[in-house]
Amino acid sequence: MVLYAEPLENLIEQLCRLPGIGPKSAERLAFFMLSIPREDAARLAEAIIDIKEKIHFCGICFNISEGDICSVCSDSRRDPTTICVVEEPKDILAVEKTGAFKGRYHVLGGAISPIDGIGPEELRFRELVQRLGQGGIREIIVATNPNAEGEATAVYLSGLVRPLGVTVTRIASGLPVGGDLEYADEVTLGRAIEGRKEL
Amino acid sequence: MVLYAEPLENLIEQLCRLPGIGPKSAERLAFFMLSIPREDAARLAEAIIDIKEKIHFCGICFNISEGDICSVCSDSRRDPTTICVVEEPKDILAVEKTGAFKGRYHVLGGAISPIDGIGPEELRFRELVQRLGQGGIREIIVATNPNAEGEATAVYLSGLVRPLGVTVTRIASGLPVGGDLEYADEVTLGRAIEGRKEL
Repeated sequence: MVLYAEPLENLIEQLCRLPGIGPKSAERLAFFMLSIPREDAARLAEAIIDIKEKIHFCGICFNISEGDICSVCSDSRRDPTTICVVEEPKDILAVEKTGAFKGRYHVLGGAISPIDGIGPEELRFRELVQRLGQGGIREIIVATNPNAEGEATAVYLSGLVRPLGVTVTRIASGLPVGGDLEYADEVTLGRAIEGRKEL
Repeated sequence: MVLYAEPLENLIEQLCRLPGIGPKSAERLAFFMLSIPREDAARLAEAIIDIKEKIHFCGICFNISEGDICSVCSDSRRDPTTICVVEEPKDILAVEKTGAFKGRYHVLGGAISPIDGIGPEELRFRELVQRLGQGGIREIIVATNPNAEGEATAVYLSGLVRPLGVTVTRIASGLPVGGDLEYADEVTLGRAIEGRKEL
């Protein structure tokens, strides 16, 4: 029986390690890379090497950054008294897009998930407490995902930070704007009712 | 507004060019690559470069090969009088896995698909006719996919090859082994009835 040549098998194996890429997708991707011009493949390979060399994590908030300190932390116009805590660097972009937040960030690096073996020690809570210890921070906005792990993380964070005399708030859950009551799941609709505001 | 750092944007853009990878998957993959150890990322990048350098197409059948001639074409035990025509190199592996074929192959490089701008000139029909011109080939088994493009390719191939006095056969369509009559689509079931064999 003919198997794929070794370099191709190797690439398929490497691609299989990526999240969401199974053996069939890996095979398809590998054959695609085989079919494209050499320069295009080289450009992709270089881009992968590049991010490992040029992208670092901000020494203050752990946002991704080309320098030692990210563009948010080095921007003196951003309010240093409010920190928005997120799970991943990409969540910062999501918050930035809203234009509704002018403070600083802190990236935990994930959410508490015992089932995946991620406890508080695996996340950047210690670094957050250190930042709070330096003083001047009044409010922590917890913007972890509104799922079980994100909620658990928010609860843990609240217990950790509140004794330090810092206000802890959680972003609101409710119906998405433009959504339809009829199609809302009952948990979301329940949260929307709980979180109702006076008009 | 903070955008992703340039090397990250670049990687996301490169990943978006891959088939089946949209902007969201590209973003997830890029962040994954950011999170893995540098050596793992380097290994993936090298694997991509490697296939472009080490993998060639067989000069006879256009199978993928580490040398100039692939392992099937250079195997003298394989029957040189029968050629199985497939769309892609990976189809060869699928046929090899069956163990039902002991001849040689010819990879067309795709199927005729006017909607995608792929006509007979874009495929390796000329090279196949050249192989037939060298004589000694008795049968061509057309193993293109059993879809519209694959069927069109089979019909075109048959018209091209039959005048040369070579038998052209098509792999059978019908119910998959282990399948269920109840769940078969009508076209497949129709084909299975048309292609019935005496017991």
